[in-house]
Amino acid sequence: MVNEFLVNNLFVLIAGLLVFIMTISIGFLEVGELGEDLTVSLLKTMLITGSALFFMAFVGFNTAFAPTISGLIGNPFYGGLFLGGFSTNLPGLLTDVWWSMTSAYFGTGLTVGTYFLFETAFASVTLAIVGVVTLRKMKIEAFVIYSVVYFVLIWNLPAAWIWNPSGWLFLLGMRDFAGGLVVHAAAGAAGLGILYQIWREEKKKGLLESPRAAVNLRPGWLTLSILLLWVGWFGFNPGSVLAFNNSAMVVVLTTFLAAASAFLSIMFFQYVLTKQNPGLLYAVNGVLMGLIIITPLAGFVSPGSAVILGLIGGPLFLAAERWFSRFHWFSDPVGLLPGHLVGGLFGLLMIALFTQQAFATASGNPTLPDGILFGGGYAAVQQLGIEAFGAAVVLVTVFVLSYITVWLISSAIHGITTDYNKSVLGDLPRKRDLQERI
Amino acid sequence: MVNEFLVNNLFVLIAGLLVFIMTISIGFLEVGELGEDLTVSLLKTMLITGSALFFMAFVGFNTAFAPTISGLIGNPFYGGLFLGGFSTNLPGLLTDVWWSMTSAYFGTGLTVGTYFLFETAFASVTLAIVGVVTLRKMKIEAFVIYSVVYFVLIWNLPAAWIWNPSGWLFLLGMRDFAGGLVVHAAAGAAGLGILYQIWREEKKKGLLESPRAAVNLRPGWLTLSILLLWVGWFGFNPGSVLAFNNSAMVVVLTTFLAAASAFLSIMFFQYVLTKQNPGLLYAVNGVLMGLIIITPLAGFVSPGSAVILGLIGGPLFLAAERWFSRFHWFSDPVGLLPGHLVGGLFGLLMIALFTQQAFATASGNPTLPDGILFGGGYAAVQQLGIEAFGAAVVLVTVFVLSYITVWLISSAIHGITTDYNKSVLGDLPRKRDLQERI
Amino acid sequence: MVNEFLVNNLFVLIAGLLVFIMTISIGFLEVGELGEDLTVSLLKTMLITGSALFFMAFVGFNTAFAPTISGLIGNPFYGGLFLGGFSTNLPGLLTDVWWSMTSAYFGTGLTVGTYFLFETAFASVTLAIVGVVTLRKMKIEAFVIYSVVYFVLIWNLPAAWIWNPSGWLFLLGMRDFAGGLVVHAAAGAAGLGILYQIWREEKKKGLLESPRAAVNLRPGWLTLSILLLWVGWFGFNPGSVLAFNNSAMVVVLTTFLAAASAFLSIMFFQYVLTKQNPGLLYAVNGVLMGLIIITPLAGFVSPGSAVILGLIGGPLFLAAERWFSRFHWFSDPVGLLPGHLVGGLFGLLMIALFTQQAFATASGNPTLPDGILFGGGYAAVQQLGIEAFGAAVVLVTVFVLSYITVWLISSAIHGITTDYNKSVLGDLPRKRDLQERI
Repeated sequence: MVNEFLVNNLFVLIAGLLVFIMTISIGFLEVGELGEDLTVSLLKTMLITGSALFFMAFVGFNTAFAPTISGLIGNPFYGGLFLGGFSTNLPGLLTDVWWSMTSAYFGTGLTVGTYFLFETAFASVTLAIVGVVTLRKMKIEAFVIYSVVYFVLIWNLPAAWIWNPSGWLFLLGMRDFAGGLVVHAAAGAAGLGILYQIWREEKKKGLLESPRAAVNLRPGWLTLSILLLWVGWFGFNPGSVLAFNNSAMVVVLTTFLAAASAFLSIMFFQYVLTKQNPGLLYAVNGVLMGLIIITPLAGFVSPGSAVILGLIGGPLFLAAERWFSRFHWFSDPVGLLPGHLVGGLFGLLMIALFTQQAFATASGNPTLPDGILFGGGYAAVQQLGIEAFGAAVVLVTVFVLSYITVWLISSAIHGITTDYNKSVLGDLPRKRDLQERI
Repeated sequence: MVNEFLVNNLFVLIAGLLVFIMTISIGFLEVGELGEDLTVSLLKTMLITGSALFFMAFVGFNTAFAPTISGLIGNPFYGGLFLGGFSTNLPGLLTDVWWSMTSAYFGTGLTVGTYFLFETAFASVTLAIVGVVTLRKMKIEAFVIYSVVYFVLIWNLPAAWIWNPSGWLFLLGMRDFAGGLVVHAAAGAAGLGILYQIWREEKKKGLLESPRAAVNLRPGWLTLSILLLWVGWFGFNPGSVLAFNNSAMVVVLTTFLAAASAFLSIMFFQYVLTKQNPGLLYAVNGVLMGLIIITPLAGFVSPGSAVILGLIGGPLFLAAERWFSRFHWFSDPVGLLPGHLVGGLFGLLMIALFTQQAFATASGNPTLPDGILFGGGYAAVQQLGIEAFGAAVVLVTVFVLSYITVWLISSAIHGITTDYNKSVLGDLPRKRDLQERI
Repeated sequence: MVNEFLVNNLFVLIAGLLVFIMTISIGFLEVGELGEDLTVSLLKTMLITGSALFFMAFVGFNTAFAPTISGLIGNPFYGGLFLGGFSTNLPGLLTDVWWSMTSAYFGTGLTVGTYFLFETAFASVTLAIVGVVTLRKMKIEAFVIYSVVYFVLIWNLPAAWIWNPSGWLFLLGMRDFAGGLVVHAAAGAAGLGILYQIWREEKKKGLLESPRAAVNLRPGWLTLSILLLWVGWFGFNPGSVLAFNNSAMVVVLTTFLAAASAFLSIMFFQYVLTKQNPGLLYAVNGVLMGLIIITPLAGFVSPGSAVILGLIGGPLFLAAERWFSRFHWFSDPVGLLPGHLVGGLFGLLMIALFTQQAFATASGNPTLPDGILFGGGYAAVQQLGIEAFGAAVVLVTVFVLSYITVWLISSAIHGITTDYNKSVLGDLPRKRDLQERI
C-alpha cells in the first residue's frame, strides 16, 4: 500500500473511532439535560450502536456505498452480505482499496475496514440524533424495529445519492461536506416523522397538547457529553476529507473556530436578551450549533468564514428555538429541530455563499464554484439552486419513509407510544423537574 | 526509520494509550454495577495503573518480552533495569527497534517506548480484571503487594511463553491473538486463586457461604465504562497486529462486529427467556462477551465468522452465568468467570475451527492452519490440541502462582480479608442494594 | 508534503486534541475535589475553551508564534487576523508549512492547522489551571474579560520568549521542554496575581482571612479527571517534540514513568506520615505532581532519571502543601501553588542536573549541555543560571501583568469578587462540606 494511503487510513480510522463515541455521547446529552435516571437514554444509544454495526455490515453499507443501481441505491449484494462474509478476496479487505477510493473516484485509498467504521459511525450518530425526540414516549421495541429499517434504507438513500460518487445528486453537482443534510437535517426530518405519529396516537388518547419533557440538568454528564461530541466532531469533519492532507488540517480550524464563535455568540446574545448568565444549557447548544452549521461546508471555506458562520449561529439558534416553541403538538427538549434541522439546512445553503474554490479543491471537490460572496456569480446561484433542490428532495423522502415506517410498526404492535403519563409521573416528585426549559 | 515503521509505531502507540484507559474503565465498571461510593474501586484501578508502569519498567517488561532463558522467562536484566536506566544506547530507545521487532522476528519496527506502553497497558488491565473479585473483601495493602508479584512474574510468564517469539509455547505453534488466554482466561485463573484464599479465611471466621456483593446500578458510570472499554478494545485487538496494515483494519471489523452481534444476541435471548427488557447490565455484558470471545482470534478470521462467534456469545454467557451462580463460596458480581474465563477459553479453542489462513497470514501468523470449518482437517485438529494443552498449562500455572502469592501475603500480614461484614453493613441501608443480581 | 511531515502533523494534531480535552478535565478536577454542584466550574472551563480558540485565532497565536519583533512579541498581524482570515495563500495553510517549522528552524513540517490547535490547547489549559483559584469567589464576567487579555498577551509573552525560535530567552539558550515554566509555573504566578486582588477586596470587606473552599470529594468525577489529564499529558509532552520520531516515543516513557513514580511515592510517604490509606485525593495529586515535574525536561532525560524525578515528587508535594497551608490570605484547595508552581519550577531547574545530550538532541535541542549529574560541569552550571534567570523574569512579568489586569477589571466593574459568603452558605448545610482538606 502506498504510504500516503496508509496515513489516510490511519487518520480516517481514528476519525471513525471518534465519531463512534458520539452516539453514546448523545445519550449523555439527554441524561445531562433531562436527568440521570433516564437509563433508557443510555440503553437506547447502546442499542443504536449495536444495531448500526450489525445492520450496516449486513447490507446497509452496500445500499449506501456500493456502486449504485441507476444512481438511486447501492447494490445491496455487492461483495456479499456482511462485508464479504467469509470471503478473503473482497477488494479493499485484505488487499487493495474500496472501489470508490480508487483513483478513478476519490483516490484516497481507504479500505473496507476504515470506510465501514467511519460511515457506520455516521449512520449510528444520525439515528441517535433522531432518537432525542422519542424520550420516554416511544416503546423501546418499536424503536429497535425502526432502527433496522433506518440502517438498511432510510439513512442510506441520502448517502447513496450525495456521498456515493455514482449517486444521482452527486452527479448533479450537489455537495454536502460532512452531512449538514445527510446527517443533521435528515435527522430532523426523520424525527418529525416519528413526532407526527406520536402526536396522532396522543390525540387519540384525548390529549390536547403533547406532554413536555422537563429540563433537569446534570452538569457533569452534560459537560462530558459536549466534550465528547466536540472531540467527536474532530473525526466527523476533518475525517470527511477521507484523507490526511493540508485540507484536513484546515477543516480542524474551520470546525473548531465555528464552534467557539457560535458558543461566544449565543452566550453574548442570550445575556443581552435576559441580562442573566445563560448557563450550561445555552453554552452546550451554542457549541453544537456552531459545529452543525459548519458541517456541510467545513472543507470549502476559510477560517475567517468559519468565524462569521459561527457568529451567525448564536442568534439563529435563539430565533429558531423561539419559533419552534410555539408548537404544542410535540416536545423537543434537546433541540433536534432548532439545532440540527435549522442549523444543518442553513449551513448547506451557505455553501453557495462562502465556498472558496481553493479550499474546496483541496478537500477533493474541484467542481464547486466560488460562493456568491467570493465572486462566484451565476455559477454560485446555480449551486444554491442545486443545494436547495437536493435538500427538498431528501427532506421529503426521509420524512415520508420515517413516517411510513413508524406507522407500519404502530399497526403491527398496537401503537408505538408508551403510557407516557405514568412514566412521567414516576419522575415528577422532584423539584428540579419543575423548572421549564425556556 | 523506514516510513512504514513510523506509521506502525504511531498506530501501536495510540492503541497502547487506548488500552491504558481500560484499567481505570474497569474501575468505572465496578462502580457502575456495584454503586458509586466504592471509592476503593477507583483507587484500586489507579494503584494498578501506577504499579504496572513502575514494576513493568523495573523488570517485568524484560521477564515477559526480553529474549527468554530456555523459552521459560525473559532475561530480567536485558538492557538493564528500568528500560536501560540512564543508558542512551539501548537498541530501540533512541535508535533502532526492540529485538523482537527486527525483521528476524515480527519485523514491524516497534521501539521500546511503543512496545512497553502497549504491553504494560495489557498487563495493567489484566490485573484490573482479576481485581473485580476482590471487592471490598481484600485488604488494599495485600492487593498492592500482590500487584508487585503479578507484574514481575504472574502476568509475565504466559506472555513470555506465548507472545515472546522465543517462548516455548510460541515455538510449539500456539497462538493467542490478543490475549483470550494471556489476558482474559488467565485473569480468571488468577482471580480464582484469590477467591479460594478469601473463602478459606471466611470459612475460618465461621461463614457458611461467601457474602454476595449486591448489584447497585449507576447507569451513567456503567455506560461510560462500556464506552471506554469498547473504544479501548480498538487498541487491544487491532493494535495486536503490532503494525498498521490491511490486517489491522480487518481486525477493527471483526472486533466491532463480534461486539455488536453478542450484544444483540444476549438482548434477544434474555428477552426471550424473561419477557422483560434485559436492561443495561445485560447490554454491557453482551458487548463485553463479544469482545472477549473475538480477542484470541480477531486477526485470524473473517467478518462473517466474527458475526457467528458473537451470536454464540449471548447464550454462552447466559448459560455460564447460570452455572457459576450455583457456587456459594465466592462472589463474582461483575462476571469475571462467566465472561473472561469462559469467553476467553471459548474463543481460544475456536481458533482451530474458524481460522482462515489468508487472514492469519496477513496478521503475521502464517503458520496457523485453516480451521476445521474451513477445510483445515488434521492440521486443525492438531492445532486444537496445542491450544487446549497451552491453555491447561497456563491456567494451572497462573492459578497456583496466584494462590501461593496470596497465601504468603496472608501469612505475612495475618489474613488478606477485611472485616467485610462491617464494611458491607456500612453500605446496606440503601434500598437499591437489596436487589440481587440474577 | 514529505511523508515524515504528514506523520508529524498527524501525531501533533492528535496530541493537540488530547491537550484540548485537558481544559474541561480541569473542570472535572474541581468538581471532583470540591463537589458536583459547582456548575460554574464546568461553565468556566467551557468559556476558557471557547475564548482560547477565538482569541488565539484572532491575534494570540501570532503574538506568541509569529516572527517576533526584537525577540519580545510575535508580530500580531503576521498573515492577517484569524489565521489569514479569508486568505488562501497563507504559508502553511493550504500549502507549505508554518514559518518556524521550515528547515531553517524546527524543521518538522507542521502546518498552521496543526500548530494552532496544539498551542491553543496549551494556552487554554494554562488558564484552566490558573482558574482553579477563582472558585466561586470571582465574578464570571470578570473572568471572561481576564481571559481575553490572557490569550492575547499574558500567556503569549513567555511563549514568544522561550518557545518561539526568534524569542530572546530561546536565543539566550533557555529551554523549557513542554512548559514547566510557560504553562505550570506561569499559571501559578498568574493565579497569585488574581489571589492578591481577591484578598485586597476581601480585606476591604472586613475579613480577617480568606474563606477556605471545602473539600467535598466526588470519586467518579475526580477519577475521570485524572484519567483524562493523564491521557492528555500523552499529547502534552510527547507532542512537544513537534514531530513523531524515537524521541517522541522516549518522552512517552519519561512522562508515564514520572507519573507512576510520583504516585507511588506520595502514597508511600503520606501513608508513613499518617498510617492511613492516603485516599483518592493524594493519589490524584501524586500523579499530577509527577506529570508536572517531568514536563520541562521530558525530552532531555532518560527513563531512569524520570523515575528518580518522580520519586522526589511525592515528598516535595507534601512539603510544599504544608508550607503553603500556613498562609491564610488565600484559598488554594486544588493545589495550584504546591503542584503547578513548585513542581513546574523544580522540574525546570532540574534541566541543569539531569539532561543527557543524546536525549536532548533527539528531541531537537542539540545546544543543551549534559546536566551536572551527567558530567556537564561548568556548562551545566551556566544552564542552571539561564533557567533560573528566565524563570524569575517570566514569573515577575506574568504576576505583574495578571495583577494589573484584574486590578483594571476591578476598577471598571466595581470589584471582581462575588458575594462569596452568601454563595458558600448556600452550599454549606451538607455534612461532607465540613471535612477540611488537610
